[in-house]
Amino acid sequence: MCEANAYLTKQGSEELILESIMILRPEGDRIYLQNIFGEQKWIKGRIKEMNLVEHRIVLEEVQSASL
Amino acid sequence: MCEANAYLTKQGSEELILESIMILRPEGDRIYLQNIFGEQKWIKGRIKEMNLVEHRIVLEEVQSASL
Repeated sequence: MCEANAYLTKQGSEELILESIMILRPEGDRIYLQNIFGEQKWIKGRIKEMNLVEHRIVLEEVQSASL
Repeated sequence: MCEANAYLTKQGSEELILESIMILRPEGDRIYLQNIFGEQKWIKGRIKEMNLVEHRIVLEEVQSASL
């Protein structure tokens, strides 16, 4: 199977947030993820890097500009 | 193999820009792509949607704001 796992980097550490991702779609400042089991998540962040051979999608948090 | 092909949407049509992509990395307003053969491309655009089961990465052009 060719899905990938998504990780979120936060202050240097990496957290697995969803496995076996089939669909990824950026929507404004969030990223919609759906896996082969039908689980869905919206992550506030952006794509840092994807490596499809290693089945890794690395996301990073977006720092909101505060006024 | 689990690579995907990248397509660029332009005014409704879709163009294949690189096959067998291994690495994808957004860099500012461009996206860096590298395939399993070592070919590299930088595309001015953003990710519209990815479907890893269908091996599709769809990119779309970013309209630059003109003054």
